[in-house]
Amino acid sequence: MISGMNGSSAAILVIGDEILSGKTAEVNAQMLIGELRDLGVALRRIVIISDDIDEVAIAVRELSARFDHVFTSGGVGPTHDDVTILGIARAFDRSVIRHTELQARLRAYFGANIDEARLRMADVPEGTQLIETPDLRWPVLACENVYILPGVPELFKRKFAAIRERFRVAPYFARAFYTLEDEFDIADRLREVATAHPQVAIGSYPNFSAPDYRVKLTLESKDGAAIQSASEALLALLDPAQIARVE
Amino acid sequence: MISGMNGSSAAILVIGDEILSGKTAEVNAQMLIGELRDLGVALRRIVIISDDIDEVAIAVRELSARFDHVFTSGGVGPTHDDVTILGIARAFDRSVIRHTELQARLRAYFGANIDEARLRMADVPEGTQLIETPDLRWPVLACENVYILPGVPELFKRKFAAIRERFRVAPYFARAFYTLEDEFDIADRLREVATAHPQVAIGSYPNFSAPDYRVKLTLESKDGAAIQSASEALLALLDPAQIARVE
Repeated sequence: MISGMNGSSAAILVIGDEILSGKTAEVNAQMLIGELRDLGVALRRIVIISDDIDEVAIAVRELSARFDHVFTSGGVGPTHDDVTILGIARAFDRSVIRHTELQARLRAYFGANIDEARLRMADVPEGTQLIETPDLRWPVLACENVYILPGVPELFKRKFAAIRERFRVAPYFARAFYTLEDEFDIADRLREVATAHPQVAIGSYPNFSAPDYRVKLTLESKDGAAIQSASEALLALLDPAQIARVE
Repeated sequence: MISGMNGSSAAILVIGDEILSGKTAEVNAQMLIGELRDLGVALRRIVIISDDIDEVAIAVRELSARFDHVFTSGGVGPTHDDVTILGIARAFDRSVIRHTELQARLRAYFGANIDEARLRMADVPEGTQLIETPDLRWPVLACENVYILPGVPELFKRKFAAIRERFRVAPYFARAFYTLEDEFDIADRLREVATAHPQVAIGSYPNFSAPDYRVKLTLESKDGAAIQSASEALLALLDPAQIARVE
């Protein structure tokens, strides 16, 4: 299990041919990136796969074992291309069962319109938990550490918003320096600072079209003192005349 | 090896903490999705990972073995967080060597400014091929079936454009039907058509906010006759009065 430094780790699994074929732009993972950052959760991987039971099973098994939380997007409707529930069940070697309580709620909701296609929405991997919140008519389904979210963006957003606070951990601290120095020329100095401050993630991003800087340097950590110390070390090594700005 | 139906398969591996932390929006994979579709290449997976040598090695080994082409984005600069070359070398159990020809070209280009940081740009996994094109000053690097592209979007785009035609295979045919019927009500009919037409990928996408339809049904195949046959079968099963439009 890979946990975030002083916190928790996460992966996002997007299931959908429509994303890989370019018919639909991916927005759910994009949205979740910012949400997880805000919550202090270290997002470690995003995987986008097709609507295939084995692909889902393999990905879920690996991500669930390696990270604290896994969020899936898509593949939970009633049609033949909705294979997320089957894939998750296969990942954990569990049966798919018709959940008694979900079934009762579907019958109450649909009344005379209930049929087999609608009842299939009560089919879940054995042992799935229902997470109830005041804001949602239907619970969020969780199987082990895998949170099963719908692909329709409005629903994905609403469901995640309802459960987001349960994932909050200590926040990240971040600094950014913009320099006019060339990335080649600062590479060795950066490496020195990075090696001396293992608790700080230091990134270097050249930009060939920005008018006012050449390289953006980012520092991130959950340890405020470490980031302050790394910032000072970096500032001492950079040419002060070439620093365009600091954030 | 998973190949696309009558064609070739691909995966995209994006390497970058800046994407997972939300500092930078992901645009390279987004762009490549459309390019690969246009080329007839079946994109089967997108993976986004952090700047970690082992993560790169594990992902490259798996993707390279399973798909025809792998495109990496990012992690190829001179700084400590650029680990793509090391990761690819580790994936294939190869040494990183300083490429003689690349080294000579770097020396010619940088002249008196050449130094160790700049010479590191000639370090590649042993056996790496240089793909030269008339449009590029520097070749695209390919190690086995892995094409190593830079993370800076302008460069990523330019480098892929220079090599794109080598990947072109037979095109996809696509149709789309928009219906006012409820997805629950057409699920069984859809499944019937999907089962009878295994060569056609049929997708069903509900939309709860569109004013003029409830479900978009998509058909895709490389077999024009198969898609025509599946379209006819689907039209025969859908309620014609509820079809909003056809594309």
